[in-house]
Amino acid sequence: MTYQVYDTTLRDGAQREGISFSVVDKLAVARLLDEFGVGFIEGGWPGAVPKDTEFFRRARTELNLRHALLVAFGATRKAGVAVADDPQVRALLDAETPAIALVAKADLRHVERALRTTPAENLAMIRDTVAHLVAEGRRVFVDGEHFFDGYRTDPAYGAAVVETALDAGAEVMVLCDTNGGMLPSQVTAVITDLTARTGVGPERLGIHCQNDTACAVANTIAAVEAGVRHFQGTANGYGERPGNADLFAVVANLQLKLGIPVLPEGCLEQMVRVSHAIAEIANIAPDTHQAYAGAAAFAHKAGLHASAIKVDPLLYNHVDPAVVGNDMRILVTEMAGRASIELKSRELGLDLAGRPETLSRVTNRVKELEAGGWSFEAADASFELLVRSELPERAPAKPFTLESYRVIVEHREDGAVVSEATVKIRVRGERVIATAEGNGPVNALDEALRVGLTRHYPELRGFGLADYKVRILEGSQGTGAVTRVLVETAGAGRDWTTVGVHHNVVEASWHALVDALTYGLDRAHV
Amino acid sequence: MTYQVYDTTLRDGAQREGISFSVVDKLAVARLLDEFGVGFIEGGWPGAVPKDTEFFRRARTELNLRHALLVAFGATRKAGVAVADDPQVRALLDAETPAIALVAKADLRHVERALRTTPAENLAMIRDTVAHLVAEGRRVFVDGEHFFDGYRTDPAYGAAVVETALDAGAEVMVLCDTNGGMLPSQVTAVITDLTARTGVGPERLGIHCQNDTACAVANTIAAVEAGVRHFQGTANGYGERPGNADLFAVVANLQLKLGIPVLPEGCLEQMVRVSHAIAEIANIAPDTHQAYAGAAAFAHKAGLHASAIKVDPLLYNHVDPAVVGNDMRILVTEMAGRASIELKSRELGLDLAGRPETLSRVTNRVKELEAGGWSFEAADASFELLVRSELPERAPAKPFTLESYRVIVEHREDGAVVSEATVKIRVRGERVIATAEGNGPVNALDEALRVGLTRHYPELRGFGLADYKVRILEGSQGTGAVTRVLVETAGAGRDWTTVGVHHNVVEASWHALVDALTYGLDRAHV
Repeated sequence: MTYQVYDTTLRDGAQREGISFSVVDKLAVARLLDEFGVGFIEGGWPGAVPKDTEFFRRARTELNLRHALLVAFGATRKAGVAVADDPQVRALLDAETPAIALVAKADLRHVERALRTTPAENLAMIRDTVAHLVAEGRRVFVDGEHFFDGYRTDPAYGAAVVETALDAGAEVMVLCDTNGGMLPSQVTAVITDLTARTGVGPERLGIHCQNDTACAVANTIAAVEAGVRHFQGTANGYGERPGNADLFAVVANLQLKLGIPVLPEGCLEQMVRVSHAIAEIANIAPDTHQAYAGAAAFAHKAGLHASAIKVDPLLYNHVDPAVVGNDMRILVTEMAGRASIELKSRELGLDLAGRPETLSRVTNRVKELEAGGWSFEAADASFELLVRSELPERAPAKPFTLESYRVIVEHREDGAVVSEATVKIRVRGERVIATAEGNGPVNALDEALRVGLTRHYPELRGFGLADYKVRILEGSQGTGAVTRVLVETAGAGRDWTTVGVHHNVVEASWHALVDALTYGLDRAHV
Repeated sequence: MTYQVYDTTLRDGAQREGISFSVVDKLAVARLLDEFGVGFIEGGWPGAVPKDTEFFRRARTELNLRHALLVAFGATRKAGVAVADDPQVRALLDAETPAIALVAKADLRHVERALRTTPAENLAMIRDTVAHLVAEGRRVFVDGEHFFDGYRTDPAYGAAVVETALDAGAEVMVLCDTNGGMLPSQVTAVITDLTARTGVGPERLGIHCQNDTACAVANTIAAVEAGVRHFQGTANGYGERPGNADLFAVVANLQLKLGIPVLPEGCLEQMVRVSHAIAEIANIAPDTHQAYAGAAAFAHKAGLHASAIKVDPLLYNHVDPAVVGNDMRILVTEMAGRASIELKSRELGLDLAGRPETLSRVTNRVKELEAGGWSFEAADASFELLVRSELPERAPAKPFTLESYRVIVEHREDGAVVSEATVKIRVRGERVIATAEGNGPVNALDEALRVGLTRHYPELRGFGLADYKVRILEGSQGTGAVTRVLVETAGAGRDWTTVGVHHNVVEASWHALVDALTYGLDRAHV
């Protein structure tokens, strides 16, 4: 059995205050995690959360994962109910995933005070549910909730939970530090005692740590050093309270510090890109000081060591930043260097290798824009338009030019809130004035632009706005700060993301909308 | 010898990108650290940094520390210079602190490539400088820079550095993981090997960890478990790259998890206050998800477990939040039940326990609003207004009523983007029409409302928008989706957060702005 890298960003990570993934978000995060090479993606709780049921349904046709298997998460059967009659268990099977994670009470106090059932019935619930799901052909992981707290007060019951789950056919029994109160030495002690007491080999165990002592990563590493081969974590450590173990740091530590290869070849260097893209989707500002993945993770205040660093950078970095896709300089994003811009352009089919001057121009424009709050990490379409605007033979056609627009939002005396936008544009030599209403100012502006363009570009009818995200930068300045808007547009079987930045949310949205239409129309005409 | 809690926020912590303490800031931080009960405060590098020289000068008369001793930080003498002739060493004595920390090269590669001197001269520099300062009556700590990296490549030289420093009279030899690349098991292994090799007891050693593997806290704990009694860290883990060991988490783990008392009685519960106050001074937004000290460190998305949490909160918290001066926060979320609303209301000083009908009305309104996309998890002020509107004797006064508003955003032919808002309101019987411009539509609306209200409520001038967040819900519906706005307002030494939800971002913002002013004015009149 090799190591199992198990991600629970979409389930436990989403417990973080403020995260609210849509189904489209979840599909996008799953694709990114797969690119990072994780082995398992816990997608949610089908049956209990309607959005998660929908995620698993769409995942069947819309996800083409290369590395990861999807896992549905749920609970053992209800007390006093036959497993075959439990609709929650049924919903787990209906998710049609190859593997299922079952949460089970592993702390006697929780069995008695929260679940309010007997110790024996709790074991029966575990046994019945595992056996039922295994009989249906599923791989089953059992998450022992509050395992460490429980084991430290009553090791015999904790051991019974482990033996029951494994005897019933569970592939791995996952020891969860649900309240996050453990230290590494305590994790080691519990695993050592448990394996001695039960004879269960540590390779049948898994580990799931919360970060309430700021030791989640270290606790996970300690468990792996004790022989555990299945470890759970979340992207950027997202999760309830201080969060879960940051899967990026865990994986990097195992590969780079302990020499244990846990990801497929070529995946570790995706870390920074995947980390930042998931932060964008979660609409959480990336933590610049995050270990390995943060923009400042390898940033040095020059001063005393500047010249020494230049001579021998590895004396001042614990690892080569490139192995996790990071860079030693302080970057607004990972895109700002020539090398990464060249790489990214090539990925989009635009070869800048033989054109150093163009590459310099593009790099300078990206740097300038990033200094103003732009970010192309999650906006490939805007980035492609930017690069192509510097390549005369590939420059995208401008579908129109703007003369002016006006957007009005009124809260009227009768309480009605109405939005109306008027655009004045030139399309193929013709001056067009178009007005439309919308749910809000940006929607009205989008509608008005479409009204103005559709006669000349009927293919616009096939484009739809799929997502719209707003982030305020430099939040300490309140509504006067800069606004960054990401627009995701879908059409003709694909989707693309564009970005706009401005003091004014409407103008920022306008930039992103114009890029979205320009890119989409250009594609449609290729 | 008891444990030495050694803070280096003012020296190593200030290396964090963005931190720039003034002398007054440094004095204030020192007072706070002293209230937290640390034993040593490393104040800076006198001689090398003029601000730090000034800090030590003023500290002599302006600081009245109860628990902490001040430490001046500097380097061993220059190569080839007599210690008595080294002005940098002289400046350390001139700082007139009872203790001095000396940084010394402990990795042979750094001696040769960065310092460019011989291994023997480096040892002589350590010996001479320590002996000189001890002869002048100072307690001396030696920080062995890059100690772990050096020891793992050449243990004999690392051992020689340790023996040289201690033989010359250093009180403690501090082992520094300067590049932050260690894991706990590696820290343990090096300390075990070092003490065996040299016969030096671990109680003569100190530990200083950086967080590049996300293990700085765990590494520090591992060193203490190996017998080390002097540990360094910074407030909130501030420091270069991913930062230093968070001294708050280290101390809490030692006291609460390992039962080692390291702070004076009554100090641990100052943690949250001191942590947040230092963040304010550093002008860094407190990390809500920080272990122990974060606002969300004990925040539970109630729902399913609310009733169990009410019965037995310690089953769901790894420690009692009060011991570190924190609170258990219940997040009112999607799955809000009566129990969590009652709990949350009690937290806000509103007792609904004896008023089941009111509790039902509030619960129903919250459920209804949450179904429509509202979320009160981060908007305590809006939640309080909602509950109080159901309590006749506590109902907040409405500062005005709205007749209508209108917001216009124009992108003009000359490229200028302008926002203008007009509000028509009734204030204390008077009809007021007010117009203002702003950076964007919401800013213009906020300005217009303030213009209209300020004559009646001059205290409004003291309120400022501290943060503004926008989230689009149900992203798959694009700009037609619901928009949720969170507004954070600051005034009169506190801040509060309000929420608004609507299809239209302007109307959503309006709701949040009105709640913010209503709450703030109500507080101002209490």
